[in-house]
Amino acid sequence: MLSKLRSLRPLNRRTMIYGAIATSTAIATGCGKDKTESTPKQQPSVEWTMVSFLKEDAKDLILYQAPQMVCDLIKQMSDGEFTITLDNSENIATEDILKKVSDGDVQCGYSGIYYNDATYKVLFFGSAVPFGLTPQEQNAWLLYKKNPNDKLTFMQGIYKELDLNVIPFPAGGTGAQMGGWFNKEVKSPNGFNDLVMRIPGLGAEVLRDYFGVKLDENLPGGSIPITQIKNAFKEGKIKAAEWIGPYDDLQLGLHEVAEYYYYPGWWEPSTTFDVQVNIAAWDKLSSKYQEIFKAACFETHTRILAEYDQKNSEKLGEILYLETSGQIKVRKFDNSIIKQAKESTNSLLAGYAQDKTFKKVYEEWFDFKERIRKWSDLSIM
Amino acid sequence: MLSKLRSLRPLNRRTMIYGAIATSTAIATGCGKDKTESTPKQQPSVEWTMVSFLKEDAKDLILYQAPQMVCDLIKQMSDGEFTITLDNSENIATEDILKKVSDGDVQCGYSGIYYNDATYKVLFFGSAVPFGLTPQEQNAWLLYKKNPNDKLTFMQGIYKELDLNVIPFPAGGTGAQMGGWFNKEVKSPNGFNDLVMRIPGLGAEVLRDYFGVKLDENLPGGSIPITQIKNAFKEGKIKAAEWIGPYDDLQLGLHEVAEYYYYPGWWEPSTTFDVQVNIAAWDKLSSKYQEIFKAACFETHTRILAEYDQKNSEKLGEILYLETSGQIKVRKFDNSIIKQAKESTNSLLAGYAQDKTFKKVYEEWFDFKERIRKWSDLSIM
Repeated sequence: MLSKLRSLRPLNRRTMIYGAIATSTAIATGCGKDKTESTPKQQPSVEWTMVSFLKEDAKDLILYQAPQMVCDLIKQMSDGEFTITLDNSENIATEDILKKVSDGDVQCGYSGIYYNDATYKVLFFGSAVPFGLTPQEQNAWLLYKKNPNDKLTFMQGIYKELDLNVIPFPAGGTGAQMGGWFNKEVKSPNGFNDLVMRIPGLGAEVLRDYFGVKLDENLPGGSIPITQIKNAFKEGKIKAAEWIGPYDDLQLGLHEVAEYYYYPGWWEPSTTFDVQVNIAAWDKLSSKYQEIFKAACFETHTRILAEYDQKNSEKLGEILYLETSGQIKVRKFDNSIIKQAKESTNSLLAGYAQDKTFKKVYEEWFDFKERIRKWSDLSIM
Repeated sequence: MLSKLRSLRPLNRRTMIYGAIATSTAIATGCGKDKTESTPKQQPSVEWTMVSFLKEDAKDLILYQAPQMVCDLIKQMSDGEFTITLDNSENIATEDILKKVSDGDVQCGYSGIYYNDATYKVLFFGSAVPFGLTPQEQNAWLLYKKNPNDKLTFMQGIYKELDLNVIPFPAGGTGAQMGGWFNKEVKSPNGFNDLVMRIPGLGAEVLRDYFGVKLDENLPGGSIPITQIKNAFKEGKIKAAEWIGPYDDLQLGLHEVAEYYYYPGWWEPSTTFDVQVNIAAWDKLSSKYQEIFKAACFETHTRILAEYDQKNSEKLGEILYLETSGQIKVRKFDNSIIKQAKESTNSLLAGYAQDKTFKKVYEEWFDFKERIRKWSDLSIM
């Protein structure tokens, strides 16, 4: 779906000055309280900045609300004492966010980790892997601790292992996605050959390496900015593009430029977006503010997924109407495509597992998936 | 699954004195702050009580953690200024909790709404309905607003319509459940005839009215206290019992007293438990505390469901081992059973829809289910 929305931005924009951690220790003692337990403890106020990959041109996406929702909830729960200003300036490149947070240039950032480069491909297990977990299974995985007494979740621990100085908190999932828009029918794996498609992430790699899909060479990661997708179709620069699901896709008007709408979105069954927090900044927070931050992320995560499910299910009706009235064709990927894609995904992941950390996470994730899928399947009626 | 854990308790125990709303307005002004925005606003401390249906004997259930988790999170996020004491005394009857909260005898209560009597059967749509929503769909339903600008969710609005003076917040779901333990094989709908079974809720009504199941007449709602289930099997008083899923069921030792373990748990595909809050108490909270309360419920809700999914999937392995070693038999309900149960559920719900409010919610829920299930099914691979 989403992608490096700003993938063409230069990588070295570091000139922004972000708000420092304001810890004005306004301690009021001895102000005539006679009941200790009813005297509010004084909290230092904190002012943070959150950079976001979601720019103004993404404002029609459901996900667009997520980073601001986290900031608003934290402000409300702290009565304005812990404020985070959202910075979604055009000059903050998506792929820079992780490094900015890691370096402490900014206290936190909102991003999809699958927009980052190969160094951090192991982190995709917290975001989006083809034929991965369902959204509900993914939540169990994101909270999974190998040892119940661990302070960090398994995935949070991987950030530490990579010396990233970052702790991530899931705060928004799109739920299941569609396979995307095509202006030709793809009946078999061969149908993808030489197809110029807009798609980022591991799904793009599978299609490029095993299906002969051409990713636009001028656009790293095969993705183009949100505003250019529709025009790229019109101008014939791309023949296929994946985005998110019925609601967001209709907002973008993709049904006006492509005829075939495919499902299932096997490359992103449950994409998760995180607030990534700099560890030094995190450690300076009082435990009260840490809890508030965490809870705000939980609430946002649940609300956004619920809204995707609800709005996508509503707009699916519109999609089906468009099909009935002959304007688009909704198709399920042929089993031969799904089969090859599954095998290709396994090959791709096995290749990445040459890396020690990737191997460790992949094996843990794979076992988790096998186990939880068995449980999920028991309840299908 | 769960049930009126204390269904034998007398209904008129109202002698407990619950903590009043302590709003000691400790306002400290003019204490030498020179920077208004860094001076913490003074909050009155609040002391509440939460009654819970989960007693000490339920301490091995995953769900048991939920009410205390809500209280702990609220305390942490308010730095001890908003404290809720959990009261799970033996003398608080499960079916009294809704009324206690509604009457303002206590500020809030933790319960499964499906333990209440027929007057409030419409509220089951927020908790558990046979062949209802999956846990993920259920979350979308629980947050569903008919009009996006409504302040309350659709289900919260129904509490208002019933003049209950209660606002509910989902705070814990068990996820999918198993069909339960049987000491005989049930191969067809006839197999249930005259079977004495421990089961509460609408599932019990379906089995009683359409399958000839006998609910223990001494135990209202066909349910017996948690500590008695295993013994009731041993003593031959019951031949079948449903509880929750692999983890909780193994904790209870049901595999030691019954041979057959059936799935899917069509009567409770996604059971939700709520914190019910008295409206007058809620309205007295500052918006800060309201937000903290709400977020604590969101976090608890997500954590509990994730833990159920994770631990059930782990313990499913143990269940399958027990089967391999010949100790139990794991069986899927025959399609003829599922088919009749589905039809019977529809008849039962149609009967309840003679009631105006029930009809309204049922229709809204039914449409929602049809719509969101179509969307869910698109992503099955």
